[in-house]
Amino acid sequence: MGGGPDKEHLLIVLWEPEPKHITAEIKQRFPYIEITYVQLSVSSNPWGGDMTKGVPTAAERKRIASRMVPVELWKTATILITLGSLPAKAEDAPNLKLIHLFSAGVDHYANHPIFTDSDITITTSSGIHGPPISEWIIMATLVASKHYNLLYEGQKAHQWKHDRPLLMGVTDWVGKTVGIAGYGSIGRQAARVFHAMGAHVHAYTAGSRSTAESRKDRGYIVPGTGDPDGTVPRAWYSGTTKASLHTFLASGLDALIIALPLTPATRHLFSTEEFAILGTSNPPADQPNKKSKSAFLINIARGGLIDQPALVKALNDDVLVGAALDVADPEPLPEDDPLWSAKNTILTPHVSALGKEYGDRAYDLFITNWERRERGEKMFNVVDRKRGY
Amino acid sequence: MGGGPDKEHLLIVLWEPEPKHITAEIKQRFPYIEITYVQLSVSSNPWGGDMTKGVPTAAERKRIASRMVPVELWKTATILITLGSLPAKAEDAPNLKLIHLFSAGVDHYANHPIFTDSDITITTSSGIHGPPISEWIIMATLVASKHYNLLYEGQKAHQWKHDRPLLMGVTDWVGKTVGIAGYGSIGRQAARVFHAMGAHVHAYTAGSRSTAESRKDRGYIVPGTGDPDGTVPRAWYSGTTKASLHTFLASGLDALIIALPLTPATRHLFSTEEFAILGTSNPPADQPNKKSKSAFLINIARGGLIDQPALVKALNDDVLVGAALDVADPEPLPEDDPLWSAKNTILTPHVSALGKEYGDRAYDLFITNWERRERGEKMFNVVDRKRGY
Repeated sequence: MGGGPDKEHLLIVLWEPEPKHITAEIKQRFPYIEITYVQLSVSSNPWGGDMTKGVPTAAERKRIASRMVPVELWKTATILITLGSLPAKAEDAPNLKLIHLFSAGVDHYANHPIFTDSDITITTSSGIHGPPISEWIIMATLVASKHYNLLYEGQKAHQWKHDRPLLMGVTDWVGKTVGIAGYGSIGRQAARVFHAMGAHVHAYTAGSRSTAESRKDRGYIVPGTGDPDGTVPRAWYSGTTKASLHTFLASGLDALIIALPLTPATRHLFSTEEFAILGTSNPPADQPNKKSKSAFLINIARGGLIDQPALVKALNDDVLVGAALDVADPEPLPEDDPLWSAKNTILTPHVSALGKEYGDRAYDLFITNWERRERGEKMFNVVDRKRGY
Repeated sequence: MGGGPDKEHLLIVLWEPEPKHITAEIKQRFPYIEITYVQLSVSSNPWGGDMTKGVPTAAERKRIASRMVPVELWKTATILITLGSLPAKAEDAPNLKLIHLFSAGVDHYANHPIFTDSDITITTSSGIHGPPISEWIIMATLVASKHYNLLYEGQKAHQWKHDRPLLMGVTDWVGKTVGIAGYGSIGRQAARVFHAMGAHVHAYTAGSRSTAESRKDRGYIVPGTGDPDGTVPRAWYSGTTKASLHTFLASGLDALIIALPLTPATRHLFSTEEFAILGTSNPPADQPNKKSKSAFLINIARGGLIDQPALVKALNDDVLVGAALDVADPEPLPEDDPLWSAKNTILTPHVSALGKEYGDRAYDLFITNWERRERGEKMFNVVDRKRGY
């Protein structure tokens, strides 16, 4: 090896077949990396079969992975790329220095020994979800505001007629205000599109963003998307207290997008009181005549961020004008859960991030990070175990 | 009146009740304008009753209007604001100098005596449709690309499971190319939003737009929307020949938005040959590896722009990947028309422009125009009878 880098052993454990064009690219860029690809079997893949069984729990993932990944591989791996298959404990993978997760969140692993008892660097794929999830957000919001479901039923019945008074009453998003709680890659790309539609954006972040520098996106960005300089929002709100959240929620929002990580501090952050504030939304100081009296709620992050029974009540009581949800609590949502048919609610089964580009971008993020590591730069999306994401 | 402007008599003939806040504003801005508001009766309004009867033809409109507008009003009116109620002939309204239409197109009136035998200035409401129609375009395109209809059926059945392989195969719009035939207010606002979503835009216009100056929007724009300077498109194509259209269609489009006026020259402009070109879409010179082999077609303009049986065949034969249509030929579309259930087709009954803001914006355009006229400036959207729009 001369003065070159150490040999590395990259272990990839995923449900999909090996993407040869990508593993070839990794080998070409980093000749000192040896790759072992383990495809988890379709029969053990809860997603390949009956989805009513839902997404596997961390415990199920661990069991499947420990059954399918030979002990020797865990022992020699120095890098791991996976959706959720981790070694049972740090000692099983003594050489592991980096785990790159294909998921954006790490909340499923909060109690896993690798998370609690090791200091192996963990990076997430946060940042690659901006385009598909923001497209889901825009789609679901417009489906609701333009009453698409009724139009679809009309098409199925071959009926040209429609409810003209209802449709004459719809509004578009020009001049409306969209609040975004959690101004990361998803929030920023949704902001970019809503802004193009003519809407104003209010951003809510944990830390203060009072300077231009602090408003920049420091994460991984899919090129040509997002709000890299943080110039889209008309107003910024910040804090980690209920009071700060309520100030943001009372800023005259026509829609609220929840794009926060789920941590013990954010669990059930949105409940009766928050929905009431959204529902009576004081007009902002510069728009005293703003008539919005209710807001549309969008959650693409985690079901646990919301007190779900309180949400169902707020929807059925018209406190909120409607909701678009790609996540629920629990998942899969039982067939008899009242959320399924809450008033004016669009609910989809955690699919907003899916798409052909997912894998390519998640690998690209690993490659980008490894190059940054080679140059001695800070990698993107390194999990802060204390913060929880 | 001293040296002030002449007295004017503004006759408003519409189906909706008088919007008092707007007529009051007109009186305040232009005290010399007297207003008469005629609300066409609900019983005679084909839209207030059974929509299967569809949009009234020009002949029906004429009949309804001539029955409901007293002869004296036509005689004294100097300005007319209407959706489609015109005097039967120019002699019936000898003082009329301006007709402001609430519609964007004038194709319905091409054979009306006011159009063929008078030189009364006609202005349209072209320009106000950008936001709602572009929202319909984005909604319908995303509903198709993200298989929303299946997700909606899943929600109705309370099923968390979904077709994961299908959804893993969807793509988002980052790096895709959207062609826009007719780069007016609707095309420009759709371009603005697709660009924010990460897509490239190719524009097609009748006249050449080779200079920065020629790319500017000279029409009425809803503030904060559109592409006023024409800086969004990555490529411009122009012409009025089949050859020029085909060059545009072969430029590697993943979607084509038809936003052209319907004139004798554009009727059935899109037929078998055009769909074949879209379906085999040669990759653009700078993207030789572009794999798109088919395009999604969107028509929000007029059904007559398309050879509809040819479209149904192209969809059912997978020449096109799908379509989103808010217009059909004829309207209302008969219940047994094969377009209703053409493969991968979203069809809605000419509703994309509807919304609360429609009236306010159409009146605002009249007010803006009248102010321009007072200042001796050119008005927006003056119909060129020879060109046909």
